[in-house]
Amino acid sequence: MSFSPEEISILAAFADELADAAREQSLSRFRDGVKISEKDGPVFDPVTDADREAERVQRRLIEERFPDHGILGEEFGELPGNSPWRWVLDPIDGTRAYMCGTTSWTTLIGLEYEGQPVFGLIDQPYTGERWVGTNKKSDFSRTSNRKAAKTSGVTDIANARISTTDPLPTAYFGAAGAAAFARVAAAARVARFSLDAYAYGLLAIGEMDVVIETGLQRYDYAALLPVVRGAGGVVSNWNGDEPGTDDRGELVASASVELHQSTLALLAG
Amino acid sequence: MSFSPEEISILAAFADELADAAREQSLSRFRDGVKISEKDGPVFDPVTDADREAERVQRRLIEERFPDHGILGEEFGELPGNSPWRWVLDPIDGTRAYMCGTTSWTTLIGLEYEGQPVFGLIDQPYTGERWVGTNKKSDFSRTSNRKAAKTSGVTDIANARISTTDPLPTAYFGAAGAAAFARVAAAARVARFSLDAYAYGLLAIGEMDVVIETGLQRYDYAALLPVVRGAGGVVSNWNGDEPGTDDRGELVASASVELHQSTLALLAG
Repeated sequence: MSFSPEEISILAAFADELADAAREQSLSRFRDGVKISEKDGPVFDPVTDADREAERVQRRLIEERFPDHGILGEEFGELPGNSPWRWVLDPIDGTRAYMCGTTSWTTLIGLEYEGQPVFGLIDQPYTGERWVGTNKKSDFSRTSNRKAAKTSGVTDIANARISTTDPLPTAYFGAAGAAAFARVAAAARVARFSLDAYAYGLLAIGEMDVVIETGLQRYDYAALLPVVRGAGGVVSNWNGDEPGTDDRGELVASASVELHQSTLALLAG
Repeated sequence: MSFSPEEISILAAFADELADAAREQSLSRFRDGVKISEKDGPVFDPVTDADREAERVQRRLIEERFPDHGILGEEFGELPGNSPWRWVLDPIDGTRAYMCGTTSWTTLIGLEYEGQPVFGLIDQPYTGERWVGTNKKSDFSRTSNRKAAKTSGVTDIANARISTTDPLPTAYFGAAGAAAFARVAAAARVARFSLDAYAYGLLAIGEMDVVIETGLQRYDYAALLPVVRGAGGVVSNWNGDEPGTDDRGELVASASVELHQSTLALLAG
């Protein structure tokens, strides 16, 4: 059993509605000075608030329109469905970015068919940037301009711009992971940090060449795979296998097959 | 001898013109896929191109309008003037961000009177954000919305959001500097990296609480001091002295006096 191109078109248009609905919740609370008030005891947390409200409104829309679809969301967990389709939602990926006022937080909407990610959407409400992808094709838009998204095609690690959210051994990587990332960084042209899922969006439009992460959950990356692959990029875990087949949440995304091979070799040491 | 508020108003309006002129050069080359082409031999570098063209056009405008003013620019060095005024220009601060497609690069325009930074402007063309400050007052605008910029006023390091461009000992800090930064990070609420001068802009609107850097040049920070101070923030080198009085290019900016004291104490070890 499979799905038709018409089905994906309808679901992709619906994903735009989901992103717009999440945007209202996240953007209205973004850079809200109240959150860091120390005056009245416990710190008010608009991040959690925005995260929960955005997922709540998205779940409501899905349940109304596609009541048999499954849902997996960061905030409210799994709702088993009665269909091959499952939505995978991370209403605010990069909550640290959100609470620091930086613009790398995104809304991630993934869509799986029989467990395979077949559509993804990445939305950055403040800059008005949105990526969509179907594994075969990806698009990038800013407000009304929409164009095909393509990776840079860089093949040589010496030319590569690389990224991870935090390179320190004390954050996600541990000592061995940090050393592995440092081997790639030493071979690469430049490294940038703290970009969260926005880094995969940059990779899909040819502005970043390698992104390396670990400790990811399904909702952190389900939306990213169809976008990166549709733009001509390569994604796997650190061993070269499909993401999710290890229990470490590893992900490597690259602008080309050659670059992916070099990166995996450097990670292996 | 001193200057009048009218003089500063005129020069601030002129600084907007300088930023607009730089923006045309930087934004038109931003995310230009050509730069990473490996097909035709040496890598074409639109970053350098944008940097140089932006500074060239700014220098031309200053020389036409204020021919007796001095100019210090990142790309073309020092032009001594015949007046107490000197413009300090960094057309693209954060060239690594620029080449990776991230939006933390900025145009920095500082204005000194008898060697003291008395006006600063930070501009991010892609997001349309601009900060201006006069040590006494700062404003933040995005396209047409302009409002007063104020720091968060956070006083407790445990609540603080901190930032540096690269926390690794192999980048700017060296082993001792990286360890000093790590002491602050361990006490703080959250840390973000790779933000360049954009981090000081976030601090000036209450979204970041401490920024710690070293290895900065005059053109990297002259514009930042009047913006951070005008928003109620505190800036010094790591010893608590005026930036520029050490030969290490150290800078610490904080949202409040109390937070600044705690940060300096942690840096000292």
